[in-house]
Amino acid sequence: MASFDGPKFQMTDGSYVQTKAIDVGSSTDISPYLSLIREDSILNGNRAVIFDVYWDVAFLETGTKKSGWSLSSVKLSTRNLCLFLRLPNPFHDNLKDLYRFFASKFVTFVGVQIEEDLDLLRENHGLVIRNAIEVGKLAAKARGTLLLEYLGTRELAHRVLWSDLSRLDSIESKWEEKGSEDRLEAAAIEGWLIFNVWDQLSE
Amino acid sequence: MASFDGPKFQMTDGSYVQTKAIDVGSSTDISPYLSLIREDSILNGNRAVIFDVYWDVAFLETGTKKSGWSLSSVKLSTRNLCLFLRLPNPFHDNLKDLYRFFASKFVTFVGVQIEEDLDLLRENHGLVIRNAIEVGKLAAKARGTLLLEYLGTRELAHRVLWSDLSRLDSIESKWEEKGSEDRLEAAAIEGWLIFNVWDQLSE
Amino acid sequence: MASFDGPKFQMTDGSYVQTKAIDVGSSTDISPYLSLIREDSILNGNRAVIFDVYWDVAFLETGTKKSGWSLSSVKLSTRNLCLFLRLPNPFHDNLKDLYRFFASKFVTFVGVQIEEDLDLLRENHGLVIRNAIEVGKLAAKARGTLLLEYLGTRELAHRVLWSDLSRLDSIESKWEEKGSEDRLEAAAIEGWLIFNVWDQLSE
Amino acid sequence: MASFDGPKFQMTDGSYVQTKAIDVGSSTDISPYLSLIREDSILNGNRAVIFDVYWDVAFLETGTKKSGWSLSSVKLSTRNLCLFLRLPNPFHDNLKDLYRFFASKFVTFVGVQIEEDLDLLRENHGLVIRNAIEVGKLAAKARGTLLLEYLGTRELAHRVLWSDLSRLDSIESKWEEKGSEDRLEAAAIEGWLIFNVWDQLSE
Amino acid sequence: MASFDGPKFQMTDGSYVQTKAIDVGSSTDISPYLSLIREDSILNGNRAVIFDVYWDVAFLETGTKKSGWSLSSVKLSTRNLCLFLRLPNPFHDNLKDLYRFFASKFVTFVGVQIEEDLDLLRENHGLVIRNAIEVGKLAAKARGTLLLEYLGTRELAHRVLWSDLSRLDSIESKWEEKGSEDRLEAAAIEGWLIFNVWDQLSE
Amino acid sequence: MASFDGPKFQMTDGSYVQTKAIDVGSSTDISPYLSLIREDSILNGNRAVIFDVYWDVAFLETGTKKSGWSLSSVKLSTRNLCLFLRLPNPFHDNLKDLYRFFASKFVTFVGVQIEEDLDLLRENHGLVIRNAIEVGKLAAKARGTLLLEYLGTRELAHRVLWSDLSRLDSIESKWEEKGSEDRLEAAAIEGWLIFNVWDQLSE
Repeated sequence: MASFDGPKFQMTDGSYVQTKAIDVGSSTDISPYLSLIREDSILNGNRAVIFDVYWDVAFLETGTKKSGWSLSSVKLSTRNLCLFLRLPNPFHDNLKDLYRFFASKFVTFVGVQIEEDLDLLRENHGLVIRNAIEVGKLAAKARGTLLLEYLGTRELAHRVLWSDLSRLDSIESKWEEKGSEDRLEAAAIEGWLIFNVWDQLSE
Repeated sequence: MASFDGPKFQMTDGSYVQTKAIDVGSSTDISPYLSLIREDSILNGNRAVIFDVYWDVAFLETGTKKSGWSLSSVKLSTRNLCLFLRLPNPFHDNLKDLYRFFASKFVTFVGVQIEEDLDLLRENHGLVIRNAIEVGKLAAKARGTLLLEYLGTRELAHRVLWSDLSRLDSIESKWEEKGSEDRLEAAAIEGWLIFNVWDQLSE
Repeated sequence: MASFDGPKFQMTDGSYVQTKAIDVGSSTDISPYLSLIREDSILNGNRAVIFDVYWDVAFLETGTKKSGWSLSSVKLSTRNLCLFLRLPNPFHDNLKDLYRFFASKFVTFVGVQIEEDLDLLRENHGLVIRNAIEVGKLAAKARGTLLLEYLGTRELAHRVLWSDLSRLDSIESKWEEKGSEDRLEAAAIEGWLIFNVWDQLSE
Repeated sequence: MASFDGPKFQMTDGSYVQTKAIDVGSSTDISPYLSLIREDSILNGNRAVIFDVYWDVAFLETGTKKSGWSLSSVKLSTRNLCLFLRLPNPFHDNLKDLYRFFASKFVTFVGVQIEEDLDLLRENHGLVIRNAIEVGKLAAKARGTLLLEYLGTRELAHRVLWSDLSRLDSIESKWEEKGSEDRLEAAAIEGWLIFNVWDQLSE
Repeated sequence: MASFDGPKFQMTDGSYVQTKAIDVGSSTDISPYLSLIREDSILNGNRAVIFDVYWDVAFLETGTKKSGWSLSSVKLSTRNLCLFLRLPNPFHDNLKDLYRFFASKFVTFVGVQIEEDLDLLRENHGLVIRNAIEVGKLAAKARGTLLLEYLGTRELAHRVLWSDLSRLDSIESKWEEKGSEDRLEAAAIEGWLIFNVWDQLSE
Repeated sequence: MASFDGPKFQMTDGSYVQTKAIDVGSSTDISPYLSLIREDSILNGNRAVIFDVYWDVAFLETGTKKSGWSLSSVKLSTRNLCLFLRLPNPFHDNLKDLYRFFASKFVTFVGVQIEEDLDLLRENHGLVIRNAIEVGKLAAKARGTLLLEYLGTRELAHRVLWSDLSRLDSIESKWEEKGSEDRLEAAAIEGWLIFNVWDQLSE
């Protein structure tokens, strides 16, 4: 049965985020994990799913367009869960579940600096997120602080939540030297931070 | 004679929504049902028709465009009725009635997070809705609450109507385990909720 | 000699609208009727001509664009007149008169929810209206009521004029059962309503 | 020597507008007339030239684009002069003078409802007006009267100048029955009206 | 050695502008003149360079696009200098210096009604100005006078500086009768005027 | 081991910026230097990286598009470091590290007048900066001074920081006569200035 049996990380408020990292092969069934994300989002999280996407770059001839970027990984976070999917290249039919999940209107997909990502997802992969929100833009308007629109995850969280970010900084400042569990922890922390930013803004 | 003889669901205010789900074949005549929707909209609903659309994804080569999405179902709701049409692939000539219905200016088509849908309908199917409104955007302006623009159906209804949404949550959080009648009920509830959101906003 | 010798309909204020419905063939000369519309617009109507357009849909392959829509009819209304033109397919040279009429700056062309129409007219038929106005948008700003921008003809007229709309509702709610004279009456009523909305807004 | 030796029309303030209508052939030298327009604009008119353009429509196949419209005439007005150019089809090399005149930044080209015209001029003829202004938009903002943006020449002049427009109305309401001198007078009146609207707004 | 050894013109405040007009051939080295412009801009002019561009029109078939316009001359002005470059057709490799100069961020390029120019420069010549400013738009906002956005050089200067413009008017109203030195003087005056407009606005 | 062992320049506040200029060949490993930039940005600079890009122009036929510009150099600055990369043409696979660095959301990329640069980077090289900010636009809004949006680096720094810019002016006004170390110093000063502008604005 599907479960988030990867490492469990403690956040600065004492709560835990359960993670699951999956190397998606041609026969991997990711739908049970997506269902758990949706369930936690509906029952514990105001129907928000925090997402982030990661890209590979294939090299580009001068003058060619965006097609050099292909989606390599996806992160989905709720209050309690963090799912990290490493995607195959090219995609297999089982990724249709991911397409359908992103197209769903049951939940709101919340991200940071996602404008370019939404363009690339649509252009390069035909992937459409119908209900996506740029949380920084909302924060800037809600708080009347222009700057919030332009910040990355860490700085945005810093200015909205004022929580301790030293663990995140210590991993990300030495990224190349870190192993996969540290990197997963950073991903989980970032997802959890944005979940809490959204939670504060939507109160 | 055409009638909404599918399941009847009770809403939280005690009223009932009569439903009809149709598998549209090449010779199905959907126009009598569309006429009933229009009639109920004109006589009982300020000429609003709540709509939602559902998509199939065919797999996409890297770099190809939107054409991977095709319209699989359409939901149309009024105060008292909910019509759910499962569409064939490819479309047959009898779907021209649906095209004409959506192009009509007799009614206003009201939906949630429909921007992407309107684009895909036009691009992939040449389907044009001349009088469509994104209800969240209107709610955000009318109520002066920025956040309303970005929410899905459930959260939007929650913040405008404050009605009991536990039945909807219980179905949608366990979507994969639910049968077609439960899913039809969720569709009917969502349509009814947005009808009431619109009704409040347009008073 | 050209005259509006079709049915004459009484409006709710007691005035009459004279109508003319024409099946435009390859040798029909529509210019005298257009001249009468312009003359009434200049002499009795602040140089406004209310217009509406109606579309046929030819079936569309998945992935094809807008070209499935072709203009089938045009309605032009002034304070006293209503001209309804049923157009041939394809167009003949005598329709150039209609193109020139729509391109004229002598009058302002006033319509409801016309954004999609203007796009389709230009894209599919190369027809350009140089001086067109979306009356709902203007009403919304002039009255400070956001909602007016999003309504159809009937609801817009209802909220600006507060006149009795039962005749219109009774025809449009049973549209399929109505004959061509009833439908022409509904067209005349809608044109007259928007003329009066414009008249109130432009005072 | 070039002179405006066409009919001279009296305006409602007693002043006269001198006109010149030219059928531009392949060897017609229009540059002396353009120079006189520029000179009057610089010396007597705050460097404004009022312009209007007129189009021929060639018939269009369904689905083809804007190319059906070609520029047939141009009107240029200053305080005292009105030049009306009937253009050949296709254009000859001597029309380069007109292209250069329109591209000049010495003067401001002022028109009513010109957005579509500017698009068509650029798309269909490569003609660029670098310093053009839509006078209705400016009037709407300057006077705080939203409606002014959407009006044609006559109604705009009516609401800004309140001058007697009966002569214009009498010609334009019976346009088909009028001869070329009456039509030239209407063109001269319209140019003079917009000159005065601009003059009032730019004070 | 490069020097501005063309005519020296006195401005209305008594100061002089030194000019240089160059017919750029395939082996002309324009870089020393560009360096002098940059130096004067940095040392005496708040790093502003006033620019204007002039176009030739090659004749256009109906339906063809912008490519009929090619850049024929460029004017660059600072507080004390005015450089007028007449460009060859086609361009030679030595014009790369001009491309690099315009792409520089060391200075701000200031112009009047330049929107169309920037488009044509990019479309027809691949020439990019990374730091360009439309001075009329800025003046309109800074002074709260809407009209300033729409004016040409002379009228803009008139309303911001109130200096004596009779010399400029006398040249430009009789443009065809003027020789090249008079025209160079008009170019120098216009550059100097906009320099002073910018100088006032940036205080 | 990678270190910033190029010239060290003293800024006007007494602090030093350590530089490194690299001619990137096909086997140069730039990733350690990018890691140091990121580390300094995270630990000492609010996760901001100041960037600037430099272009080569290959000559353009009339009518061809942007492809004439290719990226020749990149500058990356933090509080203490300045990295200057001279890029090969065409690019080698080792530049993927630069693409990934620019696509990262760990930091915010801050630049001046970068709109054209972002377009060219994407169009000509497929290079995407997901989290970029135009600092002048932010400064204009934050300070309520419209003009700041339109200035270059030097003028922007002048009006926000009021620091002594004579060293920068003396290099840039005589750019052609300066050697590579002076030019590197100017690059370092400009990066340091914008870092401080950002630092002030983000407080």
